[in-house]
Amino acid sequence: MKLATLRHHGERTVAVCDADAGVYWPVSQLCDGFSGDMVQLVQQFSDLRESLRPRGEAHPLAAATLLAPVDRPRRNVFCVGKNYHDHAEEFSKSGFDKSAQAGEHIPEAPVVFTKPASTIIATGERIPRHADVTQQLDYEVEIGVVIGKAGRAISRANALDHVFGYTIINDVTARDLQKLHRQWFIGKSLDGFCPMGPYLVTADELDASNIDVRCWINGELRQESNSKLLIFDIPTIIETLSAGMELQPGDVIATGTPAGVGIGFNPPKFLQSGDVVRMEIARIGVLENEVA
Amino acid sequence: MKLATLRHHGERTVAVCDADAGVYWPVSQLCDGFSGDMVQLVQQFSDLRESLRPRGEAHPLAAATLLAPVDRPRRNVFCVGKNYHDHAEEFSKSGFDKSAQAGEHIPEAPVVFTKPASTIIATGERIPRHADVTQQLDYEVEIGVVIGKAGRAISRANALDHVFGYTIINDVTARDLQKLHRQWFIGKSLDGFCPMGPYLVTADELDASNIDVRCWINGELRQESNSKLLIFDIPTIIETLSAGMELQPGDVIATGTPAGVGIGFNPPKFLQSGDVVRMEIARIGVLENEVA
Repeated sequence: MKLATLRHHGERTVAVCDADAGVYWPVSQLCDGFSGDMVQLVQQFSDLRESLRPRGEAHPLAAATLLAPVDRPRRNVFCVGKNYHDHAEEFSKSGFDKSAQAGEHIPEAPVVFTKPASTIIATGERIPRHADVTQQLDYEVEIGVVIGKAGRAISRANALDHVFGYTIINDVTARDLQKLHRQWFIGKSLDGFCPMGPYLVTADELDASNIDVRCWINGELRQESNSKLLIFDIPTIIETLSAGMELQPGDVIATGTPAGVGIGFNPPKFLQSGDVVRMEIARIGVLENEVA
Repeated sequence: MKLATLRHHGERTVAVCDADAGVYWPVSQLCDGFSGDMVQLVQQFSDLRESLRPRGEAHPLAAATLLAPVDRPRRNVFCVGKNYHDHAEEFSKSGFDKSAQAGEHIPEAPVVFTKPASTIIATGERIPRHADVTQQLDYEVEIGVVIGKAGRAISRANALDHVFGYTIINDVTARDLQKLHRQWFIGKSLDGFCPMGPYLVTADELDASNIDVRCWINGELRQESNSKLLIFDIPTIIETLSAGMELQPGDVIATGTPAGVGIGFNPPKFLQSGDVVRMEIARIGVLENEVA
């Protein structure tokens, strides 16, 4: 099932979508009395699931505005850094990683930081350039995992039972701030630094162990990888995060980016105003944002 | 003004308190129709301020249960690390700081990470021991700043205009996880790792540039310092955080801890089950938690 948060006749609503046919059904139309957002839909999904089968009037997606699928998570987006071998190496070599010891490329455990919900923007929205605070704006395509079922001390073996679905996340980063402040939060958390979308696809439609991810800048393919190349795979990330912290329905986890980010080039290729960042994951769709 | 979130006749409510007299007035009693939490009180404070003058029935604090004053912040608690000279030095020397370069003690810019709201507990609640995931539980007394007025690119000169008030925060840390995961989020974010309270005192009652902080473990004074010894003072922290990210009413910022934490000792003095952690800031009160 493909879900979206969108603006429908001026109202923010969650919807079931058929992107190929270009239509959607507001959840409020399918489930009488439902007026919640995506987090509430995820929380109530097992009760609502049967009612979500498309029926009745189909509305044209062309007349709606897509918002980020989980546009108001209840806590910061969890983000994993340095989680593909090739990117961990390019990042260490770039000199921007002040969290690694000399000569250390591959982390021995997941490296986790967060981005507040205020960073989240939708496909089609512009990424703020923030030229007053950064000269080194960079992109990172990532698989976004949305948690469906609460849990603490979740084992790798059971981890996927706790996944609701997947989306695309651009973990936009100010490299100069990431380096200056040592801990990555500030460099990752400027307003607009988390484009997310276009859809949230339920877990039954994707094999988490084999998801292709791609990113183009102005039409040039820069990143191309697959979740099977993650250092810490999605079940391991869930096991690690939940070891001492209960995961909650609607939590969003950005799983890390492969090689090909701006600082991976020599000289680095930072984002400039007018650049178009296009990210694609099959079945989820295309997340595209221009730099303001 | 001294504010609290508390359980009153079985209901969670915000209240104006006279701790010396041992009484409180529920905000719902003072401001007809108000049923919000502390974040909503902060958001509406300029409208409600006049109505908050204590009057009518005073309820005994002894019959209520204090909750954390901002028990449900809308995004993760912002935390500043290594922000007192003496602690920055003890932390670097301890070998636990994997984010610093060799020989570097004092950060050149604020080091910022976050703790999710799920870490927040009240005075009197027990800090979970988490013995299954950490053997190195540590304490950190900190001044907690609560933002009152939204703003982006706030200057140092104007920063205190954006502060609503202050509380006490214990930035509980699993040192082994903080080290293992490089970025500090996981080691700082286990459930129950953010005791906060007992009260939120409005900014007009405290001089942020001169606040004493103290922490005792089982009656032994371990930490004793003053906000004038912060490396990055509260206005600088607000200027830095807001440079590219809008601060919002109800945001909570933990400002860093002075020397005397468990890893500052040789051998380290980690928290054990049954230890009592007592933290005090004059005018705010005492935050006391036993380790479960």
